Formats: sequence, C-alpha cells, structure tokens
Amino acid sequence: MAKVVCVLYDDPIDGYPTSYARDDLPRIAGYADGQTLPTPNAIDFKPGQLLGSVSGELGLRKYLEERGHTLVVTSEKDGPNSRLERELADADVVISQPFWPAYLTAERIAKAPKLKLAVTAGIGSDHVDLQAAIDRNITVAEVTFSNSISVAEHVVMMILSLVRNYLPSHDWVRNGGWNIADCAARSYDVEGMHVGTVAAGRIGLAVLRRLKPFDMHLHYFDRHRLPGKVEKELNLVWHDTVEDMVKVCDVVTINCPLHPETENLFDEGLLAKMKRGAYLVNTARGKIVNRDAVVRALKSGQLAGYAGDVWFPQPAPKDHPWRTMPHEGMTPHISGTSLSAQARYAAGVREILECFFEGRPIRNEYLIVHDGALAGTGANSYSPGDATRGSDDAARFNKT
Amino acid sequence: MAKVVCVLYDDPIDGYPTSYARDDLPRIAGYADGQTLPTPNAIDFKPGQLLGSVSGELGLRKYLEERGHTLVVTSEKDGPNSRLERELADADVVISQPFWPAYLTAERIAKAPKLKLAVTAGIGSDHVDLQAAIDRNITVAEVTFSNSISVAEHVVMMILSLVRNYLPSHDWVRNGGWNIADCAARSYDVEGMHVGTVAAGRIGLAVLRRLKPFDMHLHYFDRHRLPGKVEKELNLVWHDTVEDMVKVCDVVTINCPLHPETENLFDEGLLAKMKRGAYLVNTARGKIVNRDAVVRALKSGQLAGYAGDVWFPQPAPKDHPWRTMPHEGMTPHISGTSLSAQARYAAGVREILECFFEGRPIRNEYLIVHDGALAGTGANSYSPGDATRGSDDAARFNKT
Repeated sequence: MAKVVCVLYDDPIDGYPTSYARDDLPRIAGYADGQTLPTPNAIDFKPGQLLGSVSGELGLRKYLEERGHTLVVTSEKDGPNSRLERELADADVVISQPFWPAYLTAERIAKAPKLKLAVTAGIGSDHVDLQAAIDRNITVAEVTFSNSISVAEHVVMMILSLVRNYLPSHDWVRNGGWNIADCAARSYDVEGMHVGTVAAGRIGLAVLRRLKPFDMHLHYFDRHRLPGKVEKELNLVWHDTVEDMVKVCDVVTINCPLHPETENLFDEGLLAKMKRGAYLVNTARGKIVNRDAVVRALKSGQLAGYAGDVWFPQPAPKDHPWRTMPHEGMTPHISGTSLSAQARYAAGVREILECFFEGRPIRNEYLIVHDGALAGTGANSYSPGDATRGSDDAARFNKT
Repeated sequence: MAKVVCVLYDDPIDGYPTSYARDDLPRIAGYADGQTLPTPNAIDFKPGQLLGSVSGELGLRKYLEERGHTLVVTSEKDGPNSRLERELADADVVISQPFWPAYLTAERIAKAPKLKLAVTAGIGSDHVDLQAAIDRNITVAEVTFSNSISVAEHVVMMILSLVRNYLPSHDWVRNGGWNIADCAARSYDVEGMHVGTVAAGRIGLAVLRRLKPFDMHLHYFDRHRLPGKVEKELNLVWHDTVEDMVKVCDVVTINCPLHPETENLFDEGLLAKMKRGAYLVNTARGKIVNRDAVVRALKSGQLAGYAGDVWFPQPAPKDHPWRTMPHEGMTPHISGTSLSAQARYAAGVREILECFFEGRPIRNEYLIVHDGALAGTGANSYSPGDATRGSDDAARFNKT
C-alpha cells in the first residue's frame, strides 16, 4: 500500500465553494493535435468543481482509500519544517501543481528514499530537479496538453489587455473618472503588429492560431521547425535565434519550458534588443526572464508593458517588484488552473495513478523522466539538469 | 467662411503628452470588406499622436484656418450654459465623438439655424436626433469602419477577461496575495462555449472571425443574413430572433447600433431568457441594455459577468451603478479611440470636411442622413427617430 502526498493550493479565503458561477463545462472532443483527453477508468468529481485546492483533493481520496492507499493533502510546502518535508520520509508518490509547486530539490529527493513517482497536475516539471530524478530512477510525469489551451487563451487575453491598456482604463471606472484621454494615450490596436513566440509547441502554436485573424504578422523561434504546411497556413516567419525574432516584434510571448538553457534568457541584453515600446507576455516560467531587468525596462519605456502569471519563487513574496512595477498586467499563477483545466488534469492524474498502481505503462506523452533518463515529452522539451535553485526563497512568503 | 465646432474630450490629467509609449503605428492596407482607408488630400498630424482630446484638435486647425474658417474646440458639452450650446447659434458644422458625445437633441438643433453638417469622429450617430436632422436637412456623416476593428478587439479582450476572471485575479497581485483558489473558482476557458452576436455587421462579424480559432461555437442574429459562404466558413448558426439566440449562448456580445428598436432590448425579460451564468459584453451603446436589470442579474448570478465600454449618459455619473456592480469589466468609452483608431478617424473627418467645403460628394458609406432622409450606412443600420432622450442627465457628471 502506498502513501501519496498531494500538495495543493489553499482553499478560497471564504471557504470551499458551495456553488459556482456556471452549471457545467462545455464538452470538448479532444486536443488539437489528435491526442485524446485523459482516459481514467472513472472519476469521483463533477467537472466544473474546484479540484486544485486542499478541499478539492484532485478528486482522489475515494479512489485511493478504497484501494488501501494513504492520501495526505497539504498546502504546506516550503521550508524544512513544512508538512511536505515531514511527509517525504515515507512518501511513494508526490503530486503537485505548477501554481503551488512542491519544489523537489536534490536535497529533498535525498530525504525521500521510497519516492518512485512525481506527478505534475498540469504541465511543467521544472520544480523537480530532473537530474536528481534521473539519478534516483524516479518517474516524473505531467498531464501533457491538459491546460495548454487554457494558457494560450490567457496569453491572447494579456496581449490584448496590454496593447489596449485595459487594466488602467478599468481603474478609471472604479475611481469614478471618465478620463478618456488618459486611457487612450497608451491604447493601441494589435492589428498589423508583429508578434513572435519563443517556442511554438502546444501553447505557442495555439497562441499563433488564435492571433491569426487579428491580422497580426506572426513570427516564431523554435529549435524544431514547424511543418511547412503549418508555416504556410499561418504565414509564419521562422527565426533561427531569439535575438533575430525579438528585434522585429511589437509583442513577444514566451512559451518554452524552463530548463538550464532558457533560465534568464530575457536578461538586460536581450531586452535591449527588443523594439522600444514592445510588450512582453510570459506565462511560461518566471525564471526565464530577469526579474529586475524587466522592472528597469518598464521604467525606462524600453518595454511598454509586461504581463504573465509566472513568478519565482511561487508564491511570490508580498514585496516582489512585479506586483508594483508600472504597466504590468500580472495575475497569480492561474492561467493553467481554470476550472476547465482542473477537470482535465485531475482526470489525467487519476489516469497516471491507475497506470502506476496497476502496473500498466503511463502514456508516453505524459513522461518527462522514466527509467533513469529524459523520456517522452521530456526528451523534446527539457534538458537534463536542475532549475530549482533559489526555491528556498518561497518560504519567505509567509514571513513578509 | 464657416464656423466648425469640435467637441472633444479633455486632455490627460497631467497634460497633453510630450512622448508616447511607442514610436509609430503599424501600417494596415485597408479594411476587411475592401473599403479603402480615409483619403484626405493631406493630414497635419503624425499617426500615433493623441488627436481626440482638446489639444489634439483632430489635427484640423491648420487646414481650417488656412482656408479662413473658424475652429472652436471645447470639451464643454452639457447643460444650457455650456460652450457648445453657446457656439451653436452660428455653427455651420459640429464634430463630436461617441466617447464624449455632443448630444444634438431637437431642442439644440432648433438653436442652430446655420447647422448643415454633423460629423461623428468615429462610428455611431445616436447622439444626434436623426429625425430632427432629417426634418432640417442636416447631413449626418460618420467615419464608417475607422474603428470597427478596434472595437472588435476590445470585445474579444473583454470576453476572455470575464470568462477567465482576469480583473479580480489582477487585484490579488496588487493586494499582495497569492489566492489561486479565489481566482480559479470563477475562471473558465472559452473553448467549447457558445458565443452569439446581436448583429453581424462590421464589428460583429470581425468578433466572430477572431473567436473562430478559439474553438467556440458561433451564433448570430441579424436582420440581414450573411452570405452562405461566410456562414459555412465560420460554421455560423443564424437565429431569427434575439431570444432564440441568447437561450443557447454562454457569451453574448452586442454589436448593433442604438435606435428606437434596439433601445432597452436587454431588459429584465430578455436577461431572464439567457443561460444562468452567461456573460454579456456590450460595446455598442449603453441604452441597449437596461441599466438596473443588469445590476440585478449580476447580483443574482443570472449573469456571471458584464463588460463593455458604453454607458448612458456619457460621461457616466460618478455614482453610476455599473462602476461598482459585482463581476464587471467596464472601461470608460474607449474601445474605438485607441491611438490607432484616432489616426483613421481624424483622417476620415478631414476627408469629409474637404468634400463638404469643396462641394464634392461625401462617400456614400459615410452617410447616415443626407438630403432629408436616411442615406448610405444610415439606411442599413438606423431607423428614423430619436434615441437622445435623457441625455440632459450628462450634465450631472460634473455635479456628482
């Protein structure tokens, strides 16, 4: 019998919801590339329910306890005295979400001798030291595609909001004003602008497809070139370096995973190569951009706006400068945890656990590390190594 | 020599800009239906400049004064002692923007014996009593298509923001929190939702086109059915009544002009026919929806969200309930006055004035009322009559 430790974000401040804004979720047929939706044998939740918080338990308790396993759910994830750190000693499985990441550093993995499986409920396993997982033969899996479209929608929303100056304009409504000129003086149409994505995987390509009818000029940088048919259909311009792409773009969106090669990619130097007055949207990972260089670029006018929902560490400290920098359109890390996404990734986690406990193979497209090597999706998207450095800072959140 | 009275919104509170967020505007080739961009003989402004405020003067002063005409620019538009009302006595031309409308009621038209031309710098001439203009043989013209795409972008932005719960999530960033569950518990993906537009003219159709790759199901109601080719390309469902459409939609967007038939269309009864938890976005005109019924629907949960940028009257009084109702995503009336739009409609106003002064015909597509009848665009989009009633309330703004 196994012990599963599930690290989830806290319930809403007024408690777990007793009702929801909507009665159901739209049905979708599958994913854009033909991948099927998660296929667990059963689910014990209602799609549309809040599953990613402590009381939501990803809908797993009944399934696990009926089979004699132990489920521990906690939001206490940071610092040496946290519940997570105490439970690691005899944990077989750790589940965590990027929005509230249980950083599995090499030190923590060393304290978890029984750990065999680390599951990301969502996408992005950079909170796990992949090198340490490879060395210890721990399987790392994520629910590939479960929230890619959710994130792509968030990106388009943020691009439109930055360029059109939505958030400051909304503030004028609440402040009782009618300051049309103040709103309009920083408001532009996206039509005719050049937009480029760093990486054109599931999310990046979905963003490009969604921006196409806005009559924007579409650019991408990726290690892997897209099929000629797709390039032609969307009239894409491929760039073989990020530098080349950002020089010609009015809007840049980052949609690559975090790994040692992409960490700190948008530093002072790269930001300086962008067009003056460009907009940058990052829903990928906070560490891909240099925190303080972004603040300086916004203050100098080099960037006209920055939005995204990824920070480092997470939760972001109360004094994180991105909370107060000018022309920001930030959210907490939520783009991939809409109720729509939760229904899919909770089903995907259930599918992964069913496979794990029944000795069936986990879908190849879900695998990041397996059999002591990068595998499946991991082989395409990650490089071995560690991007968890500095995650100890997350413990600061509760102190500031 | 003529007197031109131009009613524009006030400059930014810190004064007219000395610099801008961006260095230029993207070039666009034309409008989606093949209509050409405005074709004045010349312009005296730099595209990207703030033109719609008092100091911007729509870039008209040099042109008019060099030809011996008088230009009066004011933001004082409401009440019997306003500058507008005083200048009407000998005005030949009145220019105004929907964002800061100079309400030309029958009473005011009666006080303007020389008035021959009323120009809307933008689109939507409901601030003019069209029946009175018909009766007095005043030409009413607007710059058709100049900001339709700007508005369509705003609509898509607001749909995404409401459904994904953007604005409250951004507030958590500013409040120092990391309340993922509070943000996520009202956040959905638009994928798979049914969205319908009331009217599928330039704006409505542009909204549908932009939402297509989001894999939403697209619906429309319009008096004029779209070509079969367009219906098929976008997989549109046409409804012959608004009631029929709203019953099946998760999101409804209003893109029809205001005229006596559409005034108060979304009243208590129609809102009750919508799906519980639907979202309503109105960038058309405030009077198309019933102000207090919307507030009640948001409070009861019948509507999950309401956004838009149109109010009645404009400016909206400081105590307008839409400023403080729950789940709102409002802006002041700005969707059609991005700097991109201003460059186009200022050029269009210049084109209209050149035609008027040189005795050349104004483009048919710009005409709303001409030769004592609805004409051009007006004949398709408006019905004779008056939708200006109650505009006296605008004078309240400065008092509350």
